Amino acid sequence: MIKIGIFGCGNLGRGVACAVAKNQDMELVGVFTRRDPATVQVGIPDAPVYHESALADMRGKIDVLILCGGSATDLPEQTPKYAAMFNCVDSFDTHARIPEHFARVDEAAKAAGTTCLISSGWDPGMFSLNRLYANCILPDGQDYTFWGKGVSQGHSDAVRRIEGVRDCRQYTIPVEKAMEAVREGKQPQLTTREKHTRECFVVAEEGADLRRIESEIVNMPNYFSDYDTTVHFITQEEMQRDHSGLPHGGSVIRTGVTGLQDAHNHVVEYKLTLDSNPEFTGSVITAFARAVARLSREGQTGCKTVFDVAPAYLSPLSGEEIRAHLL
Amino acid sequence: MIKIGIFGCGNLGRGVACAVAKNQDMELVGVFTRRDPATVQVGIPDAPVYHESALADMRGKIDVLILCGGSATDLPEQTPKYAAMFNCVDSFDTHARIPEHFARVDEAAKAAGTTCLISSGWDPGMFSLNRLYANCILPDGQDYTFWGKGVSQGHSDAVRRIEGVRDCRQYTIPVEKAMEAVREGKQPQLTTREKHTRECFVVAEEGADLRRIESEIVNMPNYFSDYDTTVHFITQEEMQRDHSGLPHGGSVIRTGVTGLQDAHNHVVEYKLTLDSNPEFTGSVITAFARAVARLSREGQTGCKTVFDVAPAYLSPLSGEEIRAHLL
Repeated sequence: MIKIGIFGCGNLGRGVACAVAKNQDMELVGVFTRRDPATVQVGIPDAPVYHESALADMRGKIDVLILCGGSATDLPEQTPKYAAMFNCVDSFDTHARIPEHFARVDEAAKAAGTTCLISSGWDPGMFSLNRLYANCILPDGQDYTFWGKGVSQGHSDAVRRIEGVRDCRQYTIPVEKAMEAVREGKQPQLTTREKHTRECFVVAEEGADLRRIESEIVNMPNYFSDYDTTVHFITQEEMQRDHSGLPHGGSVIRTGVTGLQDAHNHVVEYKLTLDSNPEFTGSVITAFARAVARLSREGQTGCKTVFDVAPAYLSPLSGEEIRAHLL
Repeated sequence: MIKIGIFGCGNLGRGVACAVAKNQDMELVGVFTRRDPATVQVGIPDAPVYHESALADMRGKIDVLILCGGSATDLPEQTPKYAAMFNCVDSFDTHARIPEHFARVDEAAKAAGTTCLISSGWDPGMFSLNRLYANCILPDGQDYTFWGKGVSQGHSDAVRRIEGVRDCRQYTIPVEKAMEAVREGKQPQLTTREKHTRECFVVAEEGADLRRIESEIVNMPNYFSDYDTTVHFITQEEMQRDHSGLPHGGSVIRTGVTGLQDAHNHVVEYKLTLDSNPEFTGSVITAFARAVARLSREGQTGCKTVFDVAPAYLSPLSGEEIRAHLL
């Protein structure tokens, strides 16, 4: 049995706990939190909840610690810190800062003799793997990534910070026409605006100036100003009834040419349609936790990414079994 | 530079030669054939063609030999034979006999200290990888593979063996309704007939009994009797004009559930749309040849499959580069 610890009790931590329960070669040692454990609802029957301070005594009792904090402030501090004590997996997703995060985790893991894997999940993670495979197969081609339709937590939070907004759910929506042009192998050059639209469902405070709120949303730099954005004002009841889920997904597409005079075109598409972003992300991370446990047993220490893991390490089945049934 | 040899001058061998030309870290040492080299048209400018007997003198001059023969009789003999002399990659695709082929190649490669990889391409190959990844992420789910629309060489050949048939092109076509039910997460149980239809374009000899030919096709066991098959008789000119390509493709789909009470459904789809089956297959094999060259340099000998290769080994880029640009 692979003994799993989870640090963080948000949506992602709960998603990982659900995924661990689906894998019969894993057991959940505990969920660790910075809050008072008595106040934490993991939502998983029989999941023991401990304060973070209990982690120091867990060395040797946890094979892999899965870090479920945020990429802005939690993981840059937590992954290097706990890499010094445990094999760790995280889902660090600030693309621009991955090299720096990798270097810090690698240093800590090598010094401690642990095995860590950063930036797992679906993007980064499964989308990255599909970008890499398709690039290696079709060196003469073009990459496209479309996200959605799905809820962007970051954009929803940005709208919630506007004065007069009580709640918001923001959907990222790929532009169907752009996806079709890509799938036809036309290799179009697409601007940000041409690839995705954004749709916001907003609960405003009573008496708030709706036109000001709408204007602040659609003109918000980085988040909305480069997109065509639609804003709908709804009631708290409608929010609860129609927008309580966290669906997401998207497609990684590469098109490329082969043959004499580049006569032949090819389209490779990897598409995810997810009812629950955190539960699917948690399921990916959990599969990579199995790989980390194995790499650690083989003495392969330091920081890894999804690119460094032979796919067979993710499976509970033997080499003979996967060759017979999945090849 | 990775020095590549190609054994076999059919469609696949030519596809590999085109792929090698697209990879700037590779050079084509030569194409080897059992026929008289003077009679062989590789179709690639400046590709040296040698008789098979020249291979014995090529040890040390070829980093990876790519075997492009057929799975029925060529590869079971050739891959173990040449594994004793070279690092080899093949696209052995008789699923039921993979364990046996693996064992024979592994024995030869370990004895000789070479590195070999069998069953690369897209199915087996990329489809297998996507089955494995999706199974590890969603252990509670169901796999589906759809092929087409595309030309099946094996089925076309089977029809050509019927008396009175001069030429045939057979298309395998996925049933759109079945794919839609799968993509909706309904996890349907599908019979062979419900998943694919078959369409044959046949050039008959003058005076042949067309009704007998049609009946022999649609009732042929293993190949057609379990499918709804349509037969069209066409002229040689129409065959040339409308059916000279070798397009193919298909989808690997896994749907599965996560969360408390399995409340959430997820769909993972990997879809290929290929203008040229042999050129895309050749492109996949060529990427795995790069991985084999690297594994060999690291001293990892024996037989491998796509499951055993960390994705980073497929890329000409460094770890830093792929983390910065593709993760």
